[in-house]
Amino acid sequence: MTKTHQPYYAVIFTSKQSKNTIGYNDTAKAMEQLAKQQNGFLGMESARNDIGITVSYWTSLKAIKQWKQHSEHLLAQQKGRTTWYDWYRVKICKVEREYEF
Amino acid sequence: MTKTHQPYYAVIFTSKQSKNTIGYNDTAKAMEQLAKQQNGFLGMESARNDIGITVSYWTSLKAIKQWKQHSEHLLAQQKGRTTWYDWYRVKICKVEREYEF
Repeated sequence: MTKTHQPYYAVIFTSKQSKNTIGYNDTAKAMEQLAKQQNGFLGMESARNDIGITVSYWTSLKAIKQWKQHSEHLLAQQKGRTTWYDWYRVKICKVEREYEF
Repeated sequence: MTKTHQPYYAVIFTSKQSKNTIGYNDTAKAMEQLAKQQNGFLGMESARNDIGITVSYWTSLKAIKQWKQHSEHLLAQQKGRTTWYDWYRVKICKVEREYEF
């Protein structure tokens, strides 16, 4: 059941929304669409109830860095810090192995 | 803002619940309590709406392996496969770096 892959990377984004969510959903959808168009993007999964967890997958650390520095994404990050989130945390991880059912 | 740490590990557990959720919540709570008592456990975060994402953090791959093989956890995993989940995926990752707001 254990699979072996080319090394790839996961970005774990955990967040707590503030009470000001105006514009959040539109921007979140736009950022998801934009992320999918980036070089090195492999996939994305999200869930939210009390906190939000979004995990995106990438072929390389370079691809993650480029996405972080994308101009539209930078604007969204800024708006996230000033308005939409009480806090967020980002962890950049190398996927060592995986299995599934 | 970027922090440097001792290396540590994240287990990304994504899942889709089946329609049969009898006993699920009790077991999920029991497993969370049990995980917290394990050697090498660092923390856990969960969110669920369409899919569920639980990320747990550990000091070492050995700690992750021991938790995977814990007898009560093995029973819960079996019940998860036979009853509670349509699918699940587990990714074991090394946290390379992180930042927060």
